[in-house]
Amino acid sequence: MTNPVQTETVSLSRDLTPIEWQHGRLCLLDQSRLPHEVSYVHLSTAEETARAIREMRVRGAPAIGVTAAYGMALAAAQDGTIAALRSAADELAASRPTAVNLRWAVERMMRVAKQSPHDADLAARLLAEAAELHRETLESDIRLSAFGAALISPGSSVLTHCNTGALATGGYGTALGVIRRAWEDGRLCHVFTTETRPWLQGARLTTWELARLGVPATLVVDSAAASLMAGGRVQCVITGADRIAANGDTANKIGTLSLAVLADHFCVPFYVAAPVSTVDLGAASGDDITIEERPEAEVTHAGSSPIAPEGTSAWNPAFDVTPGRLIAAIITDGGVARRPFEQSLAEVAGRG
Amino acid sequence: MTNPVQTETVSLSRDLTPIEWQHGRLCLLDQSRLPHEVSYVHLSTAEETARAIREMRVRGAPAIGVTAAYGMALAAAQDGTIAALRSAADELAASRPTAVNLRWAVERMMRVAKQSPHDADLAARLLAEAAELHRETLESDIRLSAFGAALISPGSSVLTHCNTGALATGGYGTALGVIRRAWEDGRLCHVFTTETRPWLQGARLTTWELARLGVPATLVVDSAAASLMAGGRVQCVITGADRIAANGDTANKIGTLSLAVLADHFCVPFYVAAPVSTVDLGAASGDDITIEERPEAEVTHAGSSPIAPEGTSAWNPAFDVTPGRLIAAIITDGGVARRPFEQSLAEVAGRG
Repeated sequence: MTNPVQTETVSLSRDLTPIEWQHGRLCLLDQSRLPHEVSYVHLSTAEETARAIREMRVRGAPAIGVTAAYGMALAAAQDGTIAALRSAADELAASRPTAVNLRWAVERMMRVAKQSPHDADLAARLLAEAAELHRETLESDIRLSAFGAALISPGSSVLTHCNTGALATGGYGTALGVIRRAWEDGRLCHVFTTETRPWLQGARLTTWELARLGVPATLVVDSAAASLMAGGRVQCVITGADRIAANGDTANKIGTLSLAVLADHFCVPFYVAAPVSTVDLGAASGDDITIEERPEAEVTHAGSSPIAPEGTSAWNPAFDVTPGRLIAAIITDGGVARRPFEQSLAEVAGRG
Repeated sequence: MTNPVQTETVSLSRDLTPIEWQHGRLCLLDQSRLPHEVSYVHLSTAEETARAIREMRVRGAPAIGVTAAYGMALAAAQDGTIAALRSAADELAASRPTAVNLRWAVERMMRVAKQSPHDADLAARLLAEAAELHRETLESDIRLSAFGAALISPGSSVLTHCNTGALATGGYGTALGVIRRAWEDGRLCHVFTTETRPWLQGARLTTWELARLGVPATLVVDSAAASLMAGGRVQCVITGADRIAANGDTANKIGTLSLAVLADHFCVPFYVAAPVSTVDLGAASGDDITIEERPEAEVTHAGSSPIAPEGTSAWNPAFDVTPGRLIAAIITDGGVARRPFEQSLAEVAGRG
């Protein structure tokens, strides 16, 4: 993978800030290089920001929403006309098609821009709005984590998928925020994390975050989840979400549907944790959610090394859709929604 | 991974023989290096043979049974006393604990040895017996593949897991033999193969075998199987087995249980294909099957490169147990067994 922009390698001892505005540029902890290398990319334009999102330098629905908001501030610093901002907004929103937070964040920035299109300080106003959205996203992480931790029975071991921690969110975590809070509250016994092929967010990022938090954790291949549940070794499953339809159907990292079906089969509660900015009431069901298909090479290669024979075809959907009926509860910053989700999601969305 | 014994690299154009007796040595196609390198290991002792099985130079329940039988012939050439053969048999049987074919093969060799303990030509007799067992295993592959292909509805797309082809068996395949035969019979539309973490037998070996056979195939990560089924893209799932208990509970590669639960949820038939030598009527249920746990490094590392942070704990069961109630049919060389398996398996085992 080539490097889109200037990078800077720093020591692991620095307190990590996954997304930070520094001296007129957006500074992102490069998640494609963790845990082996802690390096940052510095972005000066909306185009660079869209590219960093596409290349998964930053990933996780809430985190790419925050990143795109800062990308709009960068766009305004270059050309503050509504036409230029609309073009930047469209490019940022298209950089990853499934997570709704991206679209939500850039549209919020567009609304601010349209309120004062001739403001000489528009770039500063959009930067302030992005910082406010960033702060709100962190607060929503903390709020939903408290709601979620209360659902974890004391002494539970929990299975999670992909990475939904500080790296992927407003800075605290969604599903991993719930786990973090449950651990701090003394309710949690152990965390099992899937490795999350093909991008290995679980193996690379969740293990790394849990180790930094001091939470005891064990890594498993994605397909070992069934054995964990069959053996009674996990008391609940909790994942994040990239988009939640009005009926509770949830798009999330590929493999989530498998975990939800297994949890249903083995009578283990399956929870989704996400801020209300992830709820898309405009999507009636999962059928209305576009699933991003990523390059075959992410499956056929490990980095630049092939793992399959040359010429092998692969299908690489980044997400799947879990029907709401398989979800015990959706934990948001507006409260915990339970089935039927049509009513409860609309209620929590109003409080988020 | 270090190399246990002398290896020889040959060109891909050579007709591949995964297991072959050559000039007093056992010659194995080294499956740990495929598809990037076609090389062979040459084994001269039972100890080397046990090590090659442990290190997965050869894998797949029927193939390791054949290999262990030849290992017993090597043992007899060194020391043909019953005590020495018993020791070799125990070492070979312990090299991988889950597949019952290993124990079945070495015990068959022990029975031959005990019939003529003072035979000067015992090594030759055991070699002839190993070759006969090898030939029978190939024949049973071909027989069960024909039984299985008849179950595939014309025009089906099929999902398989791990590698169960010529490499893993008597030389034709079990689940992949069924797929091969269904393709030859014009019944098959497409094959989807899981990559099969952590060892990537699907990505490395099944794709390679299917390409050599000219069967159209697509690779997916293990956790994408649910999306394939939810989208109606596969009409059945077919896997091999490492041990089948009397009630149909089936130990097979980690991830098989997950596929069986998903198939049940999405109303897709789930088939197991294995020779009757894989049926262990002495095990009443899956509870009687030992599940091998392999090194954590197979999960935390890709080859010698770490993919998780240093110090990450991993749980790496090589197999899981699928309850017989989730299996639509068990396809053997003695015929097709259907639920209730207690009766049907005993019947097909008698005909195998």
